[in-house]
Amino acid sequence: MIRKITPQDFQSFWPTFSSVILAEEAYAFDADMTFEQSYQLWCEAPLKTFVFVEDDVVLGTYYIKPNAMGPSRHICNCGYMVSDQARGKGIARQMCEHSQQVAVELGFKAMQFNSVVSTNEVAVKLWQKLGFDIIGTIPKAYKHPRIGYVDSFVMYKWLL
Amino acid sequence: MIRKITPQDFQSFWPTFSSVILAEEAYAFDADMTFEQSYQLWCEAPLKTFVFVEDDVVLGTYYIKPNAMGPSRHICNCGYMVSDQARGKGIARQMCEHSQQVAVELGFKAMQFNSVVSTNEVAVKLWQKLGFDIIGTIPKAYKHPRIGYVDSFVMYKWLL
Repeated sequence: MIRKITPQDFQSFWPTFSSVILAEEAYAFDADMTFEQSYQLWCEAPLKTFVFVEDDVVLGTYYIKPNAMGPSRHICNCGYMVSDQARGKGIARQMCEHSQQVAVELGFKAMQFNSVVSTNEVAVKLWQKLGFDIIGTIPKAYKHPRIGYVDSFVMYKWLL
Repeated sequence: MIRKITPQDFQSFWPTFSSVILAEEAYAFDADMTFEQSYQLWCEAPLKTFVFVEDDVVLGTYYIKPNAMGPSRHICNCGYMVSDQARGKGIARQMCEHSQQVAVELGFKAMQFNSVVSTNEVAVKLWQKLGFDIIGTIPKAYKHPRIGYVDSFVMYKWLL
């Protein structure tokens, strides 16, 4: 089930969230963000934030927000996170499909991911399968802890 | 002369700033931002903000900030604005060159513009002349008041 996040949900997802940002392989977030900073970034700054819940366990979460203001406000941005033990079950796909529906309901016309780390091949392939195109490549955009500087992709889908 | 901005500088530049965001031809800002919101966005949220001053008149301003956090914090982002009466005098070029120097001093390795409106040909050509590459094209990224949806470019330069 996908529903709006509660503070308690984020608390229970925090072990995953903190380990994912500490790994520094997929998100351009500060690895040392506190719980409060993370909550602000993921749950308060965005327009809406959802969780994927199964048997009362939070297995994933995503946010949706405008990617820019004014004349570019019709493009939204989302970020998704899935707990390690729930990988490979199609949860990211379900959340992305859900987010596209929410986006259209909210009046957005397109969705953009600003920095999909090129070494995160599972994510790149999934977004492509779901209709997103690589519309740009940012050279050396992300400092991977083992590989060093790697490119990131800008990915985009017109939703209507 | 290029120096750090003061609240008084922004006040005196406000007629330009407000007319530029109202025109909705170059910036992805809300056209109806108040003075206080604009000050926050341009002068407080960024890392640093500068003005180009000639004979005590503020002819241009730019900000510099990290474009993302954590593993992508080495890329900065800048925004430049020049008053109408000062166009064609090379002020944007001087500010961009200044910003690249400031960027390197602050430890940034690259500079990225996330959305250069494709119809803003003067800007696109200037950034290209200054070594920026178009590394992505965002389809229908910007709703131009007369032309309708136009593409935006992601532009990037490695500074080192």
